[in-house]
Amino acid sequence: MSPPSIQEVGVHATSDTTAATIPDPLTCDDVAARRSKSGPFKGGVAASTSSEFFKSTATWKPMSKKWDHRLNGESKSRQASTLKNAATYLSIPGMISLGGGLPSSSYFPFQYIDVKIPSIGKFSEAETLESGKVMHIGKHDVKEGKSAFDLSISLNYGQGTGSAQILRWITEHTEIVHDPPYQDWQCVTSVGSTSALDMIYRMFLNRGDFIISEEYTFTSAVETALPLGCKMIGVKLDAEGMLPEALDELLENWDEGAQGAPKPFLLYTVPSGQNPTGATMSTERREEIYKVAQKHDLIIIEDEPYYFLQMQPYTGRDAPAVPLPKNREEFLKSLVPSLLRMDVDGRVIRVDSFSKVLAPGSRVGWITATAQICERMIRHNEVSVQNPSGFAQVILHKLLDEEWGHAGYLDWLINLRAEYTQRRDVLLHACEDYLPAEIASWTPPAAGMFHWIKIAVEKHPDFGAKSIRTIENELFLAAVAENVLVSPGSWFSADKDAKHDEMFFRATFAAAENAAMTEAIKRFGAAIRKVFKLD
Amino acid sequence: MSPPSIQEVGVHATSDTTAATIPDPLTCDDVAARRSKSGPFKGGVAASTSSEFFKSTATWKPMSKKWDHRLNGESKSRQASTLKNAATYLSIPGMISLGGGLPSSSYFPFQYIDVKIPSIGKFSEAETLESGKVMHIGKHDVKEGKSAFDLSISLNYGQGTGSAQILRWITEHTEIVHDPPYQDWQCVTSVGSTSALDMIYRMFLNRGDFIISEEYTFTSAVETALPLGCKMIGVKLDAEGMLPEALDELLENWDEGAQGAPKPFLLYTVPSGQNPTGATMSTERREEIYKVAQKHDLIIIEDEPYYFLQMQPYTGRDAPAVPLPKNREEFLKSLVPSLLRMDVDGRVIRVDSFSKVLAPGSRVGWITATAQICERMIRHNEVSVQNPSGFAQVILHKLLDEEWGHAGYLDWLINLRAEYTQRRDVLLHACEDYLPAEIASWTPPAAGMFHWIKIAVEKHPDFGAKSIRTIENELFLAAVAENVLVSPGSWFSADKDAKHDEMFFRATFAAAENAAMTEAIKRFGAAIRKVFKLD
Repeated sequence: MSPPSIQEVGVHATSDTTAATIPDPLTCDDVAARRSKSGPFKGGVAASTSSEFFKSTATWKPMSKKWDHRLNGESKSRQASTLKNAATYLSIPGMISLGGGLPSSSYFPFQYIDVKIPSIGKFSEAETLESGKVMHIGKHDVKEGKSAFDLSISLNYGQGTGSAQILRWITEHTEIVHDPPYQDWQCVTSVGSTSALDMIYRMFLNRGDFIISEEYTFTSAVETALPLGCKMIGVKLDAEGMLPEALDELLENWDEGAQGAPKPFLLYTVPSGQNPTGATMSTERREEIYKVAQKHDLIIIEDEPYYFLQMQPYTGRDAPAVPLPKNREEFLKSLVPSLLRMDVDGRVIRVDSFSKVLAPGSRVGWITATAQICERMIRHNEVSVQNPSGFAQVILHKLLDEEWGHAGYLDWLINLRAEYTQRRDVLLHACEDYLPAEIASWTPPAAGMFHWIKIAVEKHPDFGAKSIRTIENELFLAAVAENVLVSPGSWFSADKDAKHDEMFFRATFAAAENAAMTEAIKRFGAAIRKVFKLD
Repeated sequence: MSPPSIQEVGVHATSDTTAATIPDPLTCDDVAARRSKSGPFKGGVAASTSSEFFKSTATWKPMSKKWDHRLNGESKSRQASTLKNAATYLSIPGMISLGGGLPSSSYFPFQYIDVKIPSIGKFSEAETLESGKVMHIGKHDVKEGKSAFDLSISLNYGQGTGSAQILRWITEHTEIVHDPPYQDWQCVTSVGSTSALDMIYRMFLNRGDFIISEEYTFTSAVETALPLGCKMIGVKLDAEGMLPEALDELLENWDEGAQGAPKPFLLYTVPSGQNPTGATMSTERREEIYKVAQKHDLIIIEDEPYYFLQMQPYTGRDAPAVPLPKNREEFLKSLVPSLLRMDVDGRVIRVDSFSKVLAPGSRVGWITATAQICERMIRHNEVSVQNPSGFAQVILHKLLDEEWGHAGYLDWLINLRAEYTQRRDVLLHACEDYLPAEIASWTPPAAGMFHWIKIAVEKHPDFGAKSIRTIENELFLAAVAENVLVSPGSWFSADKDAKHDEMFFRATFAAAENAAMTEAIKRFGAAIRKVFKLD
């Protein structure tokens, strides 16, 4: 499906002619009308672009705060690229460029790419084989008037923003879903969230700095920080994520001398389906965390790969399931508002990814932040990753913009919610059936891919004589001996030296098929029984 | 074309059964036999891999030097990823993993990808339309026994090495072309050379360090270094590139106190078709530079995007053209040996790219270096870019390995040589026709995309009264006024504050069509005449 035509736009279309009226937030159906108003689309080879071209004008919103006092020396000193600057002369009519070393597309040995994709609403592999659509991406589609993007453009050099085509879709999607409450927000592509995180760290951190995160966190976020000479400091969390009081206390009582480091200002959090705990912050919790961030002038890295893996409530195996959102509007309303959505100051750097909702191998993601922060990121992109692969950009553009459109993508996400809900339920049922209730307990995860199982380590026969780490390792190896791989909680400790008085294991319901998942939990149950000598 | 079968392997196939006999270097035709000897190929989802699996065993070669004294704190402190370590348990038969959060490929909305490519020997766009081949990449081709790679693998998470499939091809290609003379060389993928360079800098440099390069160099190499607190220091060059005596002199006379920095040890060079000067080092020049590097214990970053754009000798417009290499062997012999090929110590980090020979947008490149350096790069990849896009990896694998094979790729490169030779000749003819000989002079470039035109600035009527930079800017703007974009040489100065007593402009023959290129040079000639008041 193409994006909706002007005729399809509903009566609630925005009107920005009167400054006094605040228009309704952007919806999928408004996109075509907004595009038609924003003038001709500039998407040629290495076209310079910006989210500003694709956003609603929203002069009633406040401007963001400036972050000069947080940027480090490396980031502050970045200059615009000499050669990319010179590209401005290319817009002069009749100009012939012997300037930049851009190869001619006649030497790209890729004439067209056809991709078989699911039709909207028929998303399974079986349905795709039967009723899927083949999307065609030619080398010269733009020149031939067939598309806004093609191989001659996507496979040449690009800009640090990502291509205009993919940036437009990302910007519109971000506005539809999050509608940031300040004026000067923008998006910039990344080559995946892991790379984005590395670059964000390098924008703000100095050696010796601490980063705040949940007490258990994404290992890669820790492992990216350590070689930069920076450590994570963990904040206690419950099933709704990081505890605002604990965060406030940590910052209130920060003692530079005792810690040997300045008061931290960078908060890394995974608010939805947190990795590894599966915790999802409620709206209220997010508001509280944001208030603490304002109080201590924090910058929040909102890492949200699992945002669209918010699932249906778990009702137990006998109660009727809660019906899926009936339509796109209901779906969007059902999502916990992001920190970005409440970010009046521009202190949130939201990190988005296609890895969990389309495919990890795309290596396309994006950040949303203030214009100032995005500009620093673009400068960094220019002299490092440049932009995501053109193969990925053009295939995602074709799928998300020209085939599915914003609305079709939301349908895909609704379908994914149903799939992950079903997978989670299979895992939870297996846990109910096969894990000894006196040892293993949990809160059903509301989002993400992970189930966080608390093990009552104090019931181990050698508790006290053996350390918790020793018992954890014993159980991990016992599970391996039973042929099941589950991840010990200590692997996810924000601070590797921290002592924990509890014990957890993380299991994912993303990867294995239903029967294998059930069998795996059965095996894990047997391992627990052996290690805890229950039989 | 698939890689050659065992039957096709020539009589010179290697024999590694006797340690006393040093086998002939690997050729395209040997690859299939070597593959069949190296045991079953392991290329599943996120399979761990290494160049060691794909290289010839060469125990007669020396081991490389160790570089602990050159690695910086950031790089030395990198640890292996906790979760990727745990993946070793996955090889246990019958293991069910609930460990890693790898999504199921059933949720990748890409059922297959078809790509139209040129058949070997019929490489032009017109021929591709007529006789090109469609290569088919399914989601489950590996399970179905149709291919070594598919979408279910390439679009999932990968490893910091790149996929086994692409790493295998890259390693074999590197051995065929460069055959590094030490034992423990390896390759690792990058998301393009710009990113590789950023990562190499971050492996060795500390703030305040200098990097050595040609006096005029790739602007991005400078702009990547500056925010890291590092500067380039330039060495004089001639038409054969960097002058070894000048390099030696710089290092011999380095005065830490006067320079405020330790003696530099990182040498950045583009030996073939240097950007911007078009200079190509001869074999002898390379040997001399390597000797200076040994004397001063340098690490050489050999950035070689234009290596395969070595062209036919320029014979002038009336002399007969030198015939193209008749076959692949002749082609390989015609290439100036790389620094990697003479690198007995393992002090060269070769940076390769597909940008100039397939398409910049692939964002796939690789480095070749010692196992120690590659291992540090893999650790860095894991917590930053991870690996190139799976779309790019699987399409390049299909093209280079399963369709063209090593031999077909060399044919492609021979064709590209003919194309670039023709383009260069058009530009040189235009320069001969339209640039005033009393002002503009040049050496015909032997490789790359760039033509470096010396402008006799001392003949400017205001020379002396006006600075060289002022005159350069005058000529740049006069060219823009004539509607042609050429790049002032000062943009490429390694040291932005350096004073040059010469003036150059860079023109590329990569991008514009023949007629436009000729017209552009005509316009540049008019601009020179105006600025130098020749008419």
